[in-house]
Amino acid sequence: MGGDVGPDVVVPAAVRALTRDPALALILVGDEAVLGQRLSRHRFGERLSVKHASQSVGMDESPAQALRNKKNSSMRIAIELVKSGEAGACVSAGNTGALMATGRFVLKTIAGIDRPAICSSLPTLDGHTHVLDLGANVDCTTEHLHQFALMGAVLASAVDNNTRPRVGLLNIGEEANKGNEQVKSAATLLSESDLNYVGFVEGDGIFEGAADVVVCDGFAGNVALKSTEGAVRLIAHFMRSEFERSWLTRITALVAMPVLRALRHRIDPRRYNGASLLGLRGIVVKSHGGADELSFANAIAVAAAETEQNVPNLIESRLQAVMQQAEAT
Amino acid sequence: MGGDVGPDVVVPAAVRALTRDPALALILVGDEAVLGQRLSRHRFGERLSVKHASQSVGMDESPAQALRNKKNSSMRIAIELVKSGEAGACVSAGNTGALMATGRFVLKTIAGIDRPAICSSLPTLDGHTHVLDLGANVDCTTEHLHQFALMGAVLASAVDNNTRPRVGLLNIGEEANKGNEQVKSAATLLSESDLNYVGFVEGDGIFEGAADVVVCDGFAGNVALKSTEGAVRLIAHFMRSEFERSWLTRITALVAMPVLRALRHRIDPRRYNGASLLGLRGIVVKSHGGADELSFANAIAVAAAETEQNVPNLIESRLQAVMQQAEAT
Repeated sequence: MGGDVGPDVVVPAAVRALTRDPALALILVGDEAVLGQRLSRHRFGERLSVKHASQSVGMDESPAQALRNKKNSSMRIAIELVKSGEAGACVSAGNTGALMATGRFVLKTIAGIDRPAICSSLPTLDGHTHVLDLGANVDCTTEHLHQFALMGAVLASAVDNNTRPRVGLLNIGEEANKGNEQVKSAATLLSESDLNYVGFVEGDGIFEGAADVVVCDGFAGNVALKSTEGAVRLIAHFMRSEFERSWLTRITALVAMPVLRALRHRIDPRRYNGASLLGLRGIVVKSHGGADELSFANAIAVAAAETEQNVPNLIESRLQAVMQQAEAT
Repeated sequence: MGGDVGPDVVVPAAVRALTRDPALALILVGDEAVLGQRLSRHRFGERLSVKHASQSVGMDESPAQALRNKKNSSMRIAIELVKSGEAGACVSAGNTGALMATGRFVLKTIAGIDRPAICSSLPTLDGHTHVLDLGANVDCTTEHLHQFALMGAVLASAVDNNTRPRVGLLNIGEEANKGNEQVKSAATLLSESDLNYVGFVEGDGIFEGAADVVVCDGFAGNVALKSTEGAVRLIAHFMRSEFERSWLTRITALVAMPVLRALRHRIDPRRYNGASLLGLRGIVVKSHGGADELSFANAIAVAAAETEQNVPNLIESRLQAVMQQAEAT
């Protein structure tokens, strides 16, 4: 347990997740002395255990440094628990680059996947949509985008019980002649695949629920995600300052509190915390670095849902089917 | 006057803009019969005139079609008025691709600018920031990004009276090793320039006001803009539905109305309507296709401010200075 989020967040988040999901068991990986002390008050029996790690990966360490120098880090040990089968999934709020590199090094990628992608769900008018890649791959080929589409569709099928998820490609227009060469040729590839490809989706289409899976390269995906976060924070800031403008608006805020709370719940980014590193031969979920108890518990729930469905296995089967089909034709 | 926004919006927007700015004069380009009828009630004397256009460019026409077949379109004639000097600027809510193509064909680009860019201002915690390109150029070289940075800085200096605008590059992280090759080499170029380059800005940094000018290729810029619009609309939708949930929340909405109105005013996208096609040898401002009276009037105000400062001239002078400096070294 390293990074910005330490035991102060992870321990109460673990307690919350265990309370919410009776089928869940957690292994906390980190400094045994620190964790043991904090856990002495809790009684979850075998559902909550501690695994010692003498190191942790810093937020500013390069993936190469982490791989070379941090063989006893909480991150490395947690991922090795997934590799050995002792854990079904690893959840980390640590350094994203190091997490991806360690995941690839220890777990390897699924046969047929060149590059794992970061996938998260975002809220829509009537549910949510899965968007990938959110930043792991800045330059992507058409084939990479195709692989992301397959992985996203498998994930949506598994965790949303959506048998025919609609897959869209993020673009700057909906017409076929819009966008760069990469997006246009990916569109051709996807429309020839057996995916339920629904065409180009613009940035606003993500939140309108134009598709159940939105595929993009990691640059565009990260820009979409971060811009949105920034705009939402700006609105929250303006809202606070308007309600704090005078004694009259403060009273209004009190009156409106139940509605504002309900609204906050609906758009709370913490409810969408937990991005999956799809394409690895094991489940790794990345929590936001600034996660609090509620949001880290959500990342744990994401990992639990993927573990229950064994998403990496489903992705592997789907890819094998696609490859066999390609060979047959 | 073609496209989604016709005389029903443009005429009242013109009246609003003329009322707000006594120094303004407007020429409405479109069907003389339709416009004349609507204008008979208004008395702005020589400040409001009509120029007949027998054609209009459709929203789904290709730029090539518009250039070839629509020589008498309102768009073409309005841009020719800028070319001849009869108008200081052209404002259009029409087909963006056709507007850019016609602008390039009629007005030409400023010497030293390879590609014009679309630039709009977006709200920040304490003001606004200029973001470009927002979709005109999906593939950009490092030099294109450098030119966008120069144009954005000139615009910010001119319209915001900001003598040393901070210029940032949109990226998926703030560290120097983040991003694709294009962004990394643009960073080198900008840090060697005499611009006030402040480094990489992430999507959320746009709205935090991390820079006065944020530079990106048209793909990333469009994704940032549209995603943000989508997220804001989603929040507005959730807010409405929470306030309409029951009779109690409806009463709450009435009580909170003054605050909600003030909030809406602060985040109203209509106040940010009006994107400049920078790099042309004349001022062309693109209004949102779905603009209403208030937002179209804002696009007119953007054009008026740029006309007052003669932004294309300022860009040309700045580029000449940069080129002379480059020759001297």
